[in-house]
Amino acid sequence: MSGDARCIGVFDSGIGGLTVVRELRRRLPNERIVYFGDTARVPYGIKSNQTITRFSHEICDFLRRFDPKMIVVACNTASAVALRDLEAALPIPVIGVVEPGAKQAVVLARGHSIAVIATEATIASDAYRKAMEKYNSGSPVLQRACPLFVPIVEEGRRPDDPITRSVIADYLTPLMHLDPGVIVLGCTHYPLLKTAIAEFVGPDIHLVDSGEQCAAGVVERLRAHEALNEEPGPGSLTCYVSDNPQRFKELGQRFLDHPVVDVTWISNEQFLSHTYEPAPSHA
Amino acid sequence: MSGDARCIGVFDSGIGGLTVVRELRRRLPNERIVYFGDTARVPYGIKSNQTITRFSHEICDFLRRFDPKMIVVACNTASAVALRDLEAALPIPVIGVVEPGAKQAVVLARGHSIAVIATEATIASDAYRKAMEKYNSGSPVLQRACPLFVPIVEEGRRPDDPITRSVIADYLTPLMHLDPGVIVLGCTHYPLLKTAIAEFVGPDIHLVDSGEQCAAGVVERLRAHEALNEEPGPGSLTCYVSDNPQRFKELGQRFLDHPVVDVTWISNEQFLSHTYEPAPSHA
Repeated sequence: MSGDARCIGVFDSGIGGLTVVRELRRRLPNERIVYFGDTARVPYGIKSNQTITRFSHEICDFLRRFDPKMIVVACNTASAVALRDLEAALPIPVIGVVEPGAKQAVVLARGHSIAVIATEATIASDAYRKAMEKYNSGSPVLQRACPLFVPIVEEGRRPDDPITRSVIADYLTPLMHLDPGVIVLGCTHYPLLKTAIAEFVGPDIHLVDSGEQCAAGVVERLRAHEALNEEPGPGSLTCYVSDNPQRFKELGQRFLDHPVVDVTWISNEQFLSHTYEPAPSHA
Repeated sequence: MSGDARCIGVFDSGIGGLTVVRELRRRLPNERIVYFGDTARVPYGIKSNQTITRFSHEICDFLRRFDPKMIVVACNTASAVALRDLEAALPIPVIGVVEPGAKQAVVLARGHSIAVIATEATIASDAYRKAMEKYNSGSPVLQRACPLFVPIVEEGRRPDDPITRSVIADYLTPLMHLDPGVIVLGCTHYPLLKTAIAEFVGPDIHLVDSGEQCAAGVVERLRAHEALNEEPGPGSLTCYVSDNPQRFKELGQRFLDHPVVDVTWISNEQFLSHTYEPAPSHA
């Protein structure tokens, strides 16, 4: 039998990566997904490259205990900063969110300028601009850190909340003056603001959800390598977090668009121990 | 010679504790202060009690290498959650920010209701309410988490910024309906919003800065124990951070009201190693 029934490992600094999982599950409903959210050390967006890279390696070491066929870095900050390093260190494919989002943005921009909105660290890394340069698009790239978007999403403010609206206007107005053809949502929290952003920028600007593009890239890659899970039956989502599983469950539903059922807290000792044996994940 | 020339250890999850240091230096200009900001793991406000307590113990272990005469927990979240535990474990006095702020609020409220604004974890801990109960004040205590205030301060938004104003109105309007006599700024970032909050609530409501009260408490305690530094000459501030010293310097000036000069990054290995020998701090 061809195919590969092993799980897909996914990680994020916290809860945002569940928007990528949502897209993965929509496309690949029978895959087993093991997710790690580093909620004890979230957010990564204000941390140094060295620290983010160390955290990412530690998480991949943890995820590898589940024998994944692929690791998805469902965190823009970690993708921007640590992806090359992880690819070099790991014997399985590692897919980030920056590259697929950058590619799609260039395709849609057709030479118009491209605006990237993301966390401080992602913007400082210049990763989107560098990824776009490969395609020689000629599109000017504008970048803007939007530090209030993550807490606004985590607070559960709705798209029509006046604070949500005024913060969006505050960050995006200077970008609109530069007439972008595309705006890249360069943080996995931002899809929850997509409706409100679309309303503000109007119908002529494409919004690229880099998590959605990443999920499409995962499908393509697994298919090309004949590594999709061909066993029948529904897939599963097993989540591990380094802190506060209750908050993860409560907030997670909005990100996943589905209740987050199976969440286990991993202590620091379990996280760093190389002998920790997770219980078998649910079928 | 009486007095105690040893340093005062101060810590916070990040940069906010510098508002407490500012008040300490104003009152005790010739003390030596060693500060630790846990910028690799900031913020604590959304983390569990167990994790916050573990982090706090690790930091106190680090600070004790400098032989402090006292440790100031300049972080409301850590004070709310871990203070009792630290007091029990350490052979030197440990002073937090919650207790002094709670006491001052009760004094000023004179039976009117008291509003506490703070991070999610501080509010969830109910620490301010519990601390106020000791004084049998009869004041009703209202509590409200304000998760956007920290990123607004760190972004450097000014008191007259429209976003600052509308977020303050959004959080405080429901509290104003309950006619509080006092509002406690229960997070060390919030003093940077004090002007804007005062403008919104008007002159009839007392604002209690718990960091300021904490500094007053430190002076009182050292004086009572004849442990003030009686050596002549100016004091010093030596800062250690677990990540991103550059960002700490850049942002720190606004919190300290003075340039933050002496900042050293401590690697995770140095932080957890019990043999790390810091260079002697500047005179």
